[in-house]
Amino acid sequence: METKEIKVMKKILNINDSIADELRISLKEKGILYINLMSSPGSGKTTLLEKTAEKFGKNIFVIEGDIQTTLDAERVAKAGIRSFQINTGPFGGDCHLESGWIKSAIEEIDLSGIEILFVENIGNLVCPAEFDVGAHINAVVLSVTEGEDKPLKYPLAFRNSQLCIISKTDLLPYLDINIEKIKENIKNVNPQMDIIELSAKTGEGFENWVKFLNYNLKK
Amino acid sequence: METKEIKVMKKILNINDSIADELRISLKEKGILYINLMSSPGSGKTTLLEKTAEKFGKNIFVIEGDIQTTLDAERVAKAGIRSFQINTGPFGGDCHLESGWIKSAIEEIDLSGIEILFVENIGNLVCPAEFDVGAHINAVVLSVTEGEDKPLKYPLAFRNSQLCIISKTDLLPYLDINIEKIKENIKNVNPQMDIIELSAKTGEGFENWVKFLNYNLKK
Repeated sequence: METKEIKVMKKILNINDSIADELRISLKEKGILYINLMSSPGSGKTTLLEKTAEKFGKNIFVIEGDIQTTLDAERVAKAGIRSFQINTGPFGGDCHLESGWIKSAIEEIDLSGIEILFVENIGNLVCPAEFDVGAHINAVVLSVTEGEDKPLKYPLAFRNSQLCIISKTDLLPYLDINIEKIKENIKNVNPQMDIIELSAKTGEGFENWVKFLNYNLKK
Repeated sequence: METKEIKVMKKILNINDSIADELRISLKEKGILYINLMSSPGSGKTTLLEKTAEKFGKNIFVIEGDIQTTLDAERVAKAGIRSFQINTGPFGGDCHLESGWIKSAIEEIDLSGIEILFVENIGNLVCPAEFDVGAHINAVVLSVTEGEDKPLKYPLAFRNSQLCIISKTDLLPYLDINIEKIKENIKNVNPQMDIIELSAKTGEGFENWVKFLNYNLKK
């Protein structure tokens, strides 16, 4: 029985990867930068997107992935961002997004005038990293409140990402956390990782994120 | 192909549930209270356990679940707690614990003199809630830094738990978070949920957790 399961899983993963490649190429051809945001629940992905609309402009689109509720889509809508909500299921639905769901969403979206497409993946530091959604950049968001050891404990998300955004830096004075230790642990898992430290609340460090987006848009 | 996958999954889940029932009964017979702690990464489960040893006593045992590293086992060892580390795999291993792994761990552990067995599940607010590990009490730990909406967005973990520990309350003065709103959202998902608010750092509210443990030990 176990063999059968593995075979099916492999087949599903292969389909996922080929759709992911297709998305990566077609969005590149359209001149749209495609960024997949992954993190634990509550690390500040939605707040980052709200602030990005304010500081960067409104020509961004967000595909929101959640198990349940449209709360994040409602939040980004208030910030003037167009979005599409994917719900993976009302009762303990899937713990990650797959490329096929993104493809189906994109087929229903008018992307004209859009410069950056964000996917806000399901809040989960484990499973989303196992599924390529075809993004040009995978970015992991890590809140300083989560502790110094998370890159070591959840290495795949850090290994499969090109950027780590260390968020909520405004809370550092109230925590027993050394941000240099967080960065050292990230680099131990992925020496090539770009790292941006910021607080979407106070705006501290946010210019580096805007610079990163502009640089990658021109690439 | 899909039907086959579902059949295999159902078979695996049935085995998981029957081992879970077995564990629940055998630990009850031994007079050991068995608590499964679930949460997002970095919500403070390990700190809660360290402080529990200090305030409650040393007759507790922790089975640590992590994808990788023995960091949590090392931390609780320093607090004088005996522990057993389960690693689910070095490269993006399983995102949850299953009852069979707990059973195998228990077969290797000397539980004589132990009053409470804790499982510190993998940091993931989605998948662990889908797998019964046979605990007498499922407890979800939610840090105030994670935001007010998490019970609504990750309902299964809250629906399948009997206790919610709202942690890191010492950070409330520095957040735009209303703890009453968190509690309201918990009760919306699970009206029967017991809720304990505490800060393992300052000790605030910790007496309610110790009281909860003593009450359930006598039951």
